Amino acid sequence: MDTQQIANRLVALCREGKYDECYDELFAPDARNIEMPAMAGGPLGDAQGLDAIRAKARAWSDGVEQIHGGSVGEPQVSGNWFSVPMSMDLTFKGGQRMAMDELCIYQVRDGKIVREQFFYDT
Amino acid sequence: MDTQQIANRLVALCREGKYDECYDELFAPDARNIEMPAMAGGPLGDAQGLDAIRAKARAWSDGVEQIHGGSVGEPQVSGNWFSVPMSMDLTFKGGQRMAMDELCIYQVRDGKIVREQFFYDT
Repeated sequence: MDTQQIANRLVALCREGKYDECYDELFAPDARNIEMPAMAGGPLGDAQGLDAIRAKARAWSDGVEQIHGGSVGEPQVSGNWFSVPMSMDLTFKGGQRMAMDELCIYQVRDGKIVREQFFYDT
Repeated sequence: MDTQQIANRLVALCREGKYDECYDELFAPDARNIEMPAMAGGPLGDAQGLDAIRAKARAWSDGVEQIHGGSVGEPQVSGNWFSVPMSMDLTFKGGQRMAMDELCIYQVRDGKIVREQFFYDT
């Protein structure tokens, strides 16, 4: 798949909530996952490698009480990079409700996503 | 201006090649300009503050022999962030021709761009 096809597939899977399939199918084993610096050092900070990224995704899910809604926008490709706007409205366990928008950036190399980086207000 | 309006204005100015106006009108004085890590330490590495960003833009222009073409795509907004795909085909002084695609990410705060970050292959 080329970058546009990978971008389209990622968006389709994310819209169905199939995040595991997303990592299995589209990501390189040593992919990097990069958050905003404010998240560094915690369980939801940067992760290197698919095992660490999957563990982080589970840690995140475990903290969520309810997802009220969200959206995954259209991918925008430039060379071997693409961006996807995403939003989510959720309540964490403990009761804090948060609506967040983020811009997700992906880098493709040799037909796999090798880096995902998320930009949002902290 | 809200984030969408700033994004639209930046794209309009970039398409006209009005980069100075872009910085004057849309950027905060202490804005950060972030390149790929491979560029760190050189004259075209990260820059902090509009004076440093303008000096870097001049250093870049001074190295260019001819711009053959390029494009500035549509902005894509998510919260206080937006992305713009850009491409440029140019020849540097010395004769090296390069066609490059990049994904440019911008953060808006209080009606000004406070951060621009460029993603491209290195």
